[in-house]
Amino acid sequence: MDETQELEERFAQLREDLKGNYLQDFRENFLEMHIYEQSQFYQTLEKKQRQLVYAYLSPKELADMFDALEEDNENIKDYLGEMRANYASEMLAQMYTDNAVDLLNTLDKKQMGKYLSLMDEEDASEIKELLHYEDETAGAIMTTEFVSIVANQTVRSAMYVLKKVAKAAETIYYTYVVDQDNQLVGVISLRDLLVSDDDEMVADILNDRVISVHVGDDQEDVAQTFRDYDFLALPVTDYEDHLLGIVTVDDIIDVIDDEAASDYSGLAGVNVEEVHENPVKAASKRLPWLITLLFLGMATASLINHYEALVSEASILAAFITLITGTAGNAGTQSLAVAVRRLAFNDNKAKSYLQTIFGEVLTGVVTGFITGLTILVIVWIWKGNPILGFVIGMAMMCAITVANLAGSLIPMFMDKLGFDPAVASGPFITTLSDLTSVLIYFNIASLFMSYFIG
Amino acid sequence: MDETQELEERFAQLREDLKGNYLQDFRENFLEMHIYEQSQFYQTLEKKQRQLVYAYLSPKELADMFDALEEDNENIKDYLGEMRANYASEMLAQMYTDNAVDLLNTLDKKQMGKYLSLMDEEDASEIKELLHYEDETAGAIMTTEFVSIVANQTVRSAMYVLKKVAKAAETIYYTYVVDQDNQLVGVISLRDLLVSDDDEMVADILNDRVISVHVGDDQEDVAQTFRDYDFLALPVTDYEDHLLGIVTVDDIIDVIDDEAASDYSGLAGVNVEEVHENPVKAASKRLPWLITLLFLGMATASLINHYEALVSEASILAAFITLITGTAGNAGTQSLAVAVRRLAFNDNKAKSYLQTIFGEVLTGVVTGFITGLTILVIVWIWKGNPILGFVIGMAMMCAITVANLAGSLIPMFMDKLGFDPAVASGPFITTLSDLTSVLIYFNIASLFMSYFIG
Repeated sequence: MDETQELEERFAQLREDLKGNYLQDFRENFLEMHIYEQSQFYQTLEKKQRQLVYAYLSPKELADMFDALEEDNENIKDYLGEMRANYASEMLAQMYTDNAVDLLNTLDKKQMGKYLSLMDEEDASEIKELLHYEDETAGAIMTTEFVSIVANQTVRSAMYVLKKVAKAAETIYYTYVVDQDNQLVGVISLRDLLVSDDDEMVADILNDRVISVHVGDDQEDVAQTFRDYDFLALPVTDYEDHLLGIVTVDDIIDVIDDEAASDYSGLAGVNVEEVHENPVKAASKRLPWLITLLFLGMATASLINHYEALVSEASILAAFITLITGTAGNAGTQSLAVAVRRLAFNDNKAKSYLQTIFGEVLTGVVTGFITGLTILVIVWIWKGNPILGFVIGMAMMCAITVANLAGSLIPMFMDKLGFDPAVASGPFITTLSDLTSVLIYFNIASLFMSYFIG
Repeated sequence: MDETQELEERFAQLREDLKGNYLQDFRENFLEMHIYEQSQFYQTLEKKQRQLVYAYLSPKELADMFDALEEDNENIKDYLGEMRANYASEMLAQMYTDNAVDLLNTLDKKQMGKYLSLMDEEDASEIKELLHYEDETAGAIMTTEFVSIVANQTVRSAMYVLKKVAKAAETIYYTYVVDQDNQLVGVISLRDLLVSDDDEMVADILNDRVISVHVGDDQEDVAQTFRDYDFLALPVTDYEDHLLGIVTVDDIIDVIDDEAASDYSGLAGVNVEEVHENPVKAASKRLPWLITLLFLGMATASLINHYEALVSEASILAAFITLITGTAGNAGTQSLAVAVRRLAFNDNKAKSYLQTIFGEVLTGVVTGFITGLTILVIVWIWKGNPILGFVIGMAMMCAITVANLAGSLIPMFMDKLGFDPAVASGPFITTLSDLTSVLIYFNIASLFMSYFIG
C-alpha cells in the first residue's frame, strides 16, 4: 500500500513538472524510476502531456520505456501516430529487436513500411529478419541483442568485450561462443567467467554441451526447455547451428501466461483475455459459440421430440433428463481437462493417446457405476419403483462412460488434425454429451418401458 | 530428436559404467551433464543402481542434482530412505535452502527431525527458519543463498566479495546492499558493477529505489511483481525492512505453472495434475464432486417432477428442457471464466465486483435476446407455433441472464469469503443453472400454457 502511495505521489510530481514545463526536473524524476513504472505513468497521460514527453526525452530514453509496455496495449498505434515519424522510427530502432517487432506487428503494412524506411539500413534489416518468423515460434520471440565471442581468447579479453557491449545486450549473463562461421560451439556464464583466472582460455572453460532451440520450434516447447533446465536465456539456431538470437526468461513468462490463458479460455468457450469491453461487444464475441452449440442442442431437442410418445406415456421420464445429461456433462468436462493437460505435458504421444482414452473410459465405468448405483437407490426410495431406478442408474452409467470417451477422444482428435487440443471446450463437450445421454436414456427406457409403468 | 537420442546413448553408457563398477568413468560422464539431465537419468534407475550412485557421488554432487528434481516427485521419500541417514542429511544441507525445505515438507515430522538433528547447527537453523513460513507465501519460496554487501566499499572490493561467494549463491546477478542492521538499502546488478569504474563507491552507483516483497506476501502477488518488472530475482524483507532472502525467477515459473493448473482444475472440477493414477483412484478423486452435484441435480429433477402435470399435458415442453438448461449453462460458464480472470488480474476489487457483475448481466441480456430470438424463429418454423416459440425464447433469454448473474456472482462471493475464486467450477455453475433455468422455463410455460396448446 505504501509503495503504491509513494508511486502516486511521484506521478503527481511528474504531472506538475510537465505542467510547469520544468524540463530538467521532469527528466530527473522520470528517469530515476524503473521502466515499468515509467510506462505506468506514461499510460495515465493525456495526448497533450504525452507530446511534451516526446519533446523532453530522447528516442533512446523513450525506447527503454516502450520495452516495458505490454505488446497487446490497444493504444500503441495512437502513441506512435502522435510522434513525429522520424522520432518514432528512431525509437523503434533503439528498442530491443524482439519488442520492436511485436510492436510493428500491431501496425498495418503501410505504417510499418514507413517506419522501416526511415531507419538506418542495419537496424531495419535486423527487424525485417525477425518479422519473417512465424507467430508463436522461437524465431518470433527471440532477440538479436546477445553477446557472442570466439573461443580463442583469454577470460580477460572476453570480460573486456562483455563490458563494452553490456549496455546494449538484453542479457550479459550468458555469453555464447561461436566459430568463424558463426556456428554455436559453446556457452559460458558470467558466473564462470568471474570465478575463472584472467589468463585462462575461453576454449578451456566453456561448456560445449550447449542446450539450444531451433528457430522454428513452437514457443511452448521452448518454454518447456526453460522449465526443465532453469535457464535465464537460451540460444536460437538454424538447421546448420548458426546462432541467430536468444530467448530470455521474461519473454518466456509471457508465453506461459498466454498459453495458460488460452487453455483456460478454451475450456470455458470464451476468450478470457478480452475483458474490458462493453456488453454488446462482449456478447458479440460469445455468441458464435453459443449459437453454434444451440444448433447442436437442437439435435438433442428433436431427439427428445422424437420420443414424445414415450414421454407422454411416462412423464416421470422427463424429470430425470437434466440429471442424466448434467451429470454426464460434468464427468465429460473432467475427462476433457485431464486429456488436454496430459497431451500438453507428454512427449510420447502415440502411446499416450490410447492409454489416456482407455484410462478415461475405465474411470468412466467406475464413476458411472457408483453414480448410477446412488441414483438407483434414490429413485427406488423416492418413487418406490426399483425398475425405474434401474433404468435411470443404467442410463447414468452408460452416459457417463460415453461422455468420458468423448471427453478424451475429442482433444486427441484435435491434436491429430494439427489443432491445439486446448480449444476443445467444456461447453462443447457438455452439449455433445446432452445428445448422447438422451439417446442412451430413451433407448434404455424404451426397452424396460413395460416393466416400470405401473 | 537428435538431442533425445544423444541423451539416450549417454544414459546407456552411464548404466554400463555402473554395471562394470567403473567409478571414474561414471563420475566423468555423469558430472558432465546438466543437473536436469542428471536428475532425468537418476529417475530411470533401479534401487540397486541408485545405491551405487550414492557411493560414487559426494553429498554435494548429489545435492546439485536433487536441486533439479521436481519437489512433487512421489519417490523422494524412498530416495531419501535408501541413503544412509548421515549422507542424506549432509545432502539436504548442501542443497539450496528453498529446495531442501520443499523436500523436507514432503516427509513426516519424525523423519524431518532426524535429518535436521544430524546437520550442523547453522544449516539446520537456516532450514528451520524457512519451514516456519506459511505455504504459498514469499517466505515459503525464497532462498537464503543471496549476496549482500555494505555500501561503504569500492566496486573493486564488491567484485572481490562476489567472486568469493559466486559458487554458493543461487544468483550473483543482483547484489543487495544492506546497512549495519541488515536493513535493505539498495540493489546493484552485476551488469552495473561490471561497467562501473573499479574505484567508484558502491554507495554512489547503487539503486536505492529497490523493489522488494514482504515475507508474508502471497506467491501470486510476488509472481505479478516479476511479470511487471521483468526481474530475475526479488529481495524478501520483514516489516522492518530486514533482508531475509530472495525469490528467483525459476521458482516463479513453477508458481505460475501451479496457479495456472489450479485455475484450470477449478474450472473443470477435477485436479488435472494428478493424471498418472489408475482408473479406480482417478474415479475416487472425481466422485466427490460428481456425487455432490448429483444431489444438486436431484433438486432440478424434483422440480421437473413437480411440474409433471404440465409436462403430461404438453409433452412438447420436455423436448426443450436440455436446450434451455444447456445453453444457459454454456453462457454461465463463459461468465464464470471471465469473472475469475478479472478478479485475479485486478487490484481495485471493490469497484471491480460491481462492474463485473453489472457487465455480465448486461452481456447476458444481449446474448440472451439474440439466442432467444433465434430459437423463437426456429421453433415457430419447426412447430408452426409462434406462442410456443415465444415461450422457449423468453425462457432462454431469462435463463441466460440468470446464469450470467450466477457465473459472475459466485466467484466474487468466494473471494469475499477468502477462498480462491478459481475453485468455482464449471460443473457447479452448469448444474446450478439447470435448476434456475428449469424454474424459469416452467413458470413462463405455465403462464402461457393456454395460448400455445393447440
